[in-house]
Amino acid sequence: MLTLYYAPHTCALASHVALEQAGADYAAVRVDFSRKEQRSEPYLRVNPKGRVPSLVTDRGILTETPAILLFICQSHPAAGLAPLDDAFALAQVNAFNSYLCSTLHVAHAHRMRGSRWADDPLAIAAMRKKVPQSVGDCYALIERELFKGPWVMGEQYSVCDMYLFTLAQWMEADGVDPARFPKVSDHRLRMSRHPVVSRIIAAELAGL
Amino acid sequence: MLTLYYAPHTCALASHVALEQAGADYAAVRVDFSRKEQRSEPYLRVNPKGRVPSLVTDRGILTETPAILLFICQSHPAAGLAPLDDAFALAQVNAFNSYLCSTLHVAHAHRMRGSRWADDPLAIAAMRKKVPQSVGDCYALIERELFKGPWVMGEQYSVCDMYLFTLAQWMEADGVDPARFPKVSDHRLRMSRHPVVSRIIAAELAGL
Repeated sequence: MLTLYYAPHTCALASHVALEQAGADYAAVRVDFSRKEQRSEPYLRVNPKGRVPSLVTDRGILTETPAILLFICQSHPAAGLAPLDDAFALAQVNAFNSYLCSTLHVAHAHRMRGSRWADDPLAIAAMRKKVPQSVGDCYALIERELFKGPWVMGEQYSVCDMYLFTLAQWMEADGVDPARFPKVSDHRLRMSRHPVVSRIIAAELAGL
Repeated sequence: MLTLYYAPHTCALASHVALEQAGADYAAVRVDFSRKEQRSEPYLRVNPKGRVPSLVTDRGILTETPAILLFICQSHPAAGLAPLDDAFALAQVNAFNSYLCSTLHVAHAHRMRGSRWADDPLAIAAMRKKVPQSVGDCYALIERELFKGPWVMGEQYSVCDMYLFTLAQWMEADGVDPARFPKVSDHRLRMSRHPVVSRIIAAELAGL
């Protein structure tokens, strides 16, 4: 039995969709960001980083989306959510997810979480101002170089699709015009119509 | 045959040490950052991200340190650099490496690479000012929560050790006092004396 701690509108959606798609035996527990529950003592005992997602297993807790996604793939191999028997193809999956985590998500975080990296309100405002460019540059690289089509990794639907879809939800709020990126936008539309994706989004918004 | 593109004093050291430790058949090619070679047309054809490390394989290029490290482990299983047959233990390795990539390295990058996230020189200065705190917070979490000892993952020496050692080299320049983190500092000392590590550092500094 696995327990996923998540909050709506966060990157935890990728792990949530992956668990559901894999047919995992799991429960989802909502962390209330509006009450800063992610910084509360009980939650910090679950995940000392004070972030979501956290995946509690019978052997301990896992954090970091790329690691959680690969763990779901490896512990549910029948779901076929990553090319587990091909080290190079799997490395491409991990490289894509690592880029989303360390570059795209980080660029996005400068809009609302600038205080992680500076205290001066003017500096935080200057960071926010550059988000459309820095996030847009990431999508330009994905569109031009990384996205194989029809899915991120080509013919095989994988956890990369769930992660890209999750972050692409934030494009408009980041001041990035989706029309600049037809492949990413078409992918996002197809993902939004996927029954597992739409079921999990509805569940998260309902607080289930 | 693998080709690693690296520059001295960058996170590419982790992949370089891992290749050597794994006994991989590889060549190392230095990218001259002083001449901005990482942004040159020939290098951008190797890696459109304009960063190091890049690992060229006979099937294509790999980027992103966490992905490269796992690829080296999986393609050289006899080296025993990760718990490949234990999905949970491997996820802990990947979670640690992902944290270094997306949080610690990102915090560090605000000292010299602030222009990625803001244009205003005052904002860039404000980011630089917070680096001792944000980087120090990462080491505090590693020291308190993540480092198992004697190696990062406990008894098994792994790619996590190479990656932590690589980033810990930057601590003083980031304004973080190593004495605050005895476990990380002791680990750094032991790693610096490892024959493979010292051989690769010497080779990188010699431009080999």
